[in-house]
Amino acid sequence: MGRADFHYDFPHRSLLSIADLNPLDVQMLLERASHWHAINRTPDKKHDPLKGLTQINLFFENSTRTQASFELAGKRLGADVLNFSVSASSTAKGETLADTARTLAAMNPDLLVVRHKASGAPDFIARETGLSVINAGDGTREHPTQALLDAFALTESLGDVGGRRILIVGDILHSRVARSNVLLLSLLGAQIRLCAPPTLLPADADRWGVEVFHDLDDAIEGCDAVMTLRLQKERMSGGYIPSEREYFRFYGLTHRRMEAAQSGALVLHPGPMNRGVEIDGALADDEEVSLILDQVEAGVAVRMAVLEMLGEQTRRNTERRR
Amino acid sequence: MGRADFHYDFPHRSLLSIADLNPLDVQMLLERASHWHAINRTPDKKHDPLKGLTQINLFFENSTRTQASFELAGKRLGADVLNFSVSASSTAKGETLADTARTLAAMNPDLLVVRHKASGAPDFIARETGLSVINAGDGTREHPTQALLDAFALTESLGDVGGRRILIVGDILHSRVARSNVLLLSLLGAQIRLCAPPTLLPADADRWGVEVFHDLDDAIEGCDAVMTLRLQKERMSGGYIPSEREYFRFYGLTHRRMEAAQSGALVLHPGPMNRGVEIDGALADDEEVSLILDQVEAGVAVRMAVLEMLGEQTRRNTERRR
Amino acid sequence: MGRADFHYDFPHRSLLSIADLNPLDVQMLLERASHWHAINRTPDKKHDPLKGLTQINLFFENSTRTQASFELAGKRLGADVLNFSVSASSTAKGETLADTARTLAAMNPDLLVVRHKASGAPDFIARETGLSVINAGDGTREHPTQALLDAFALTESLGDVGGRRILIVGDILHSRVARSNVLLLSLLGAQIRLCAPPTLLPADADRWGVEVFHDLDDAIEGCDAVMTLRLQKERMSGGYIPSEREYFRFYGLTHRRMEAAQSGALVLHPGPMNRGVEIDGALADDEEVSLILDQVEAGVAVRMAVLEMLGEQTRRNTERRR
Repeated sequence: MGRADFHYDFPHRSLLSIADLNPLDVQMLLERASHWHAINRTPDKKHDPLKGLTQINLFFENSTRTQASFELAGKRLGADVLNFSVSASSTAKGETLADTARTLAAMNPDLLVVRHKASGAPDFIARETGLSVINAGDGTREHPTQALLDAFALTESLGDVGGRRILIVGDILHSRVARSNVLLLSLLGAQIRLCAPPTLLPADADRWGVEVFHDLDDAIEGCDAVMTLRLQKERMSGGYIPSEREYFRFYGLTHRRMEAAQSGALVLHPGPMNRGVEIDGALADDEEVSLILDQVEAGVAVRMAVLEMLGEQTRRNTERRR
Repeated sequence: MGRADFHYDFPHRSLLSIADLNPLDVQMLLERASHWHAINRTPDKKHDPLKGLTQINLFFENSTRTQASFELAGKRLGADVLNFSVSASSTAKGETLADTARTLAAMNPDLLVVRHKASGAPDFIARETGLSVINAGDGTREHPTQALLDAFALTESLGDVGGRRILIVGDILHSRVARSNVLLLSLLGAQIRLCAPPTLLPADADRWGVEVFHDLDDAIEGCDAVMTLRLQKERMSGGYIPSEREYFRFYGLTHRRMEAAQSGALVLHPGPMNRGVEIDGALADDEEVSLILDQVEAGVAVRMAVLEMLGEQTRRNTERRR
Repeated sequence: MGRADFHYDFPHRSLLSIADLNPLDVQMLLERASHWHAINRTPDKKHDPLKGLTQINLFFENSTRTQASFELAGKRLGADVLNFSVSASSTAKGETLADTARTLAAMNPDLLVVRHKASGAPDFIARETGLSVINAGDGTREHPTQALLDAFALTESLGDVGGRRILIVGDILHSRVARSNVLLLSLLGAQIRLCAPPTLLPADADRWGVEVFHDLDDAIEGCDAVMTLRLQKERMSGGYIPSEREYFRFYGLTHRRMEAAQSGALVLHPGPMNRGVEIDGALADDEEVSLILDQVEAGVAVRMAVLEMLGEQTRRNTERRR
């Protein structure tokens, strides 16, 4: 499906939360991602739907991987891409978030990719600037392109995820990845299970429309896919878990544990992995079941789809305003 | 005015100081900036006057904002842009300034944007390398593109600044922004006032052809525009001022204070702002009077004009040399 | 020689070690570098042999200069270039080298430029990912593009280096530059001499097919070129040498010392220099004998040749696989 044939009037100015998307939006994004996914495997991966547009990656939190994925996505679509990392910038000089955002907005970017440690910061920036903002992770709230790439990788392998039983295990409490995935997998009709030690589960998880477990072996039973989350190093010393070793014993994903799942069940991890903490290295490396590298590859394609849809919409709006 | 119609043989190899410019140079730069300013508001802001040329941003001082402005300017004009930040590089390994500059020059850049904490470093680098150098701020000496963008923003709002009364208030002593603005505003025929506490005023300011004030309320009377300068955090603990609070009381710009100015008088600030120190937040955010975001927007356009004129001249010179 | 006329089926998927190259490979690389070298001096240095390909510079060691050279090389050839610096990334979060490499590989780069403090890391990454890898310096082992650029600069000035007497002086023990140069200069038929204090000479240097000296004045006698190596600051406090001053006295390259060499003998240094330690500033700056800036210029051209040959091969392979 080339650009000329592709028409979907994406009805959102920004991608801030999975909650804003309807099933058709998701379907069109995943279909378009599939187009770019195939192109990314060829030696002709430079195209120009975003030519003439400027994309700024505004990262208040250090994340080389996510930033690289967005940077490649934008460049392959022909945008001018600028990385603006705020640890080394004016915020250190006491500038407010609004001032930083408005200053960058005054440079006339068309797309703003924002990561911030405060939940809601991308929404705030979208309101303050009126720009097209993509949430690349905000606090413990959302990471919508991560959920979309997970859905892409799952769909490629499982087909329709509707009715599938999918388990998310680990530090749900602090995980924006889990929150975005619960929203998106629900929208796609999956049956979602969460599993975590009580200290790492949000108090309101029972109202998320999911099944909650504390025992991993119970949780895993009959699942079609298991997504395990990164255990941040700071949790290990924060009193949330007794030790890495204990954590692995009770919540580490292994081949043996996966035996209780459906035959052919898949394993996902948003990366970077702590081998031997939340996942056994041998399982992570088992290409039969592990989607971990497929997720990374899907990430670039999904971000291209998102940037392209928002970019084309921005282009239309800007032309209309003139 | 498209590229084909635009002809001005910019008579300078580098932009090191406002003192090198004549009124026609300034007029042509501002006119050309106006062309790019309009284009920057469209979704077709990628053009190719600098295609085939290499721009290196050589920053010895950390400045994400100014670097971003130059980077976007170069990319939108089709240059290959390289950021070379020296805090993390060979200077840490004991390399001399001349060796760093000559090494980069050996990579055949066509345009070198230089920021350095030592006054005169860009001139030195221009002499050592023979390259086209743009001074992006050197010590306490000059920041010519800042003055040009201020003039652009003022001209857009006031029309001709000739005969206008313009006040610069704050830490004049350490301010390259003030020095470049005094030179440029004088060239454009404005009547310039400076206002600062005696500790933050250069000893020779009375020979700059300006009116000097210590009392802000006196200084502001009848002005058409007031530019307030950032108070660097290190001044606050350096014995230059009693406290931030005292500074704001005597030198902070507020709506009330602006009442003494001309009706419709404008406010400028080079950013990043310390709200509540040199300027009241409500005044900074008042779109009727504040040009602060217009300055940022003008910055990209003015830098595009400068890069284009120097780049085209470099292109002609290089072709002639072959 | 334009692109259309240039055909050499480079028989290597990666450039990991000079030891993998045969004389024809080297000849073709240097010839192609000569093409780009000429183009880099014009204002039309943007071309598109790598258009549609993605180059990732994966630097585990800080090296602004080498990274800048590879970045410019890739950009001038039309690649999308991404800098991925690992000090600030996931490795800090405990990710393994293999996981970092495989994650980046999943983003479908076509060319991976790798610098790492561990000898052999680029080979490991090439095996793990199956990608086209260029070794940009690994531990104390190899830095093949440095040797190629040295050969380019020498050949430009001396003509054929076959039979020429070339001395490498300094910290041979820790130098990947020396190892790659010994391999390449041997391949090209030069007579190689090494000179170092006994503490800075590898134990097996007598088996490298070179002449070994400890006295610089003896070593320099009759040489056509002398390459002096950077003395890393950490050696100075590591007990390898008595003091910088002593080192300069016995191993510092000066005009006076060069008098023993052939008339017109040349001086090389991989940079960045410690003036007054391994080389006298006046000698480094003597354009009659010093090739130091020619080396830097050659670096971009040689890297363009390497990236182009590997890139075109990757393009053919990827197309074949589809």
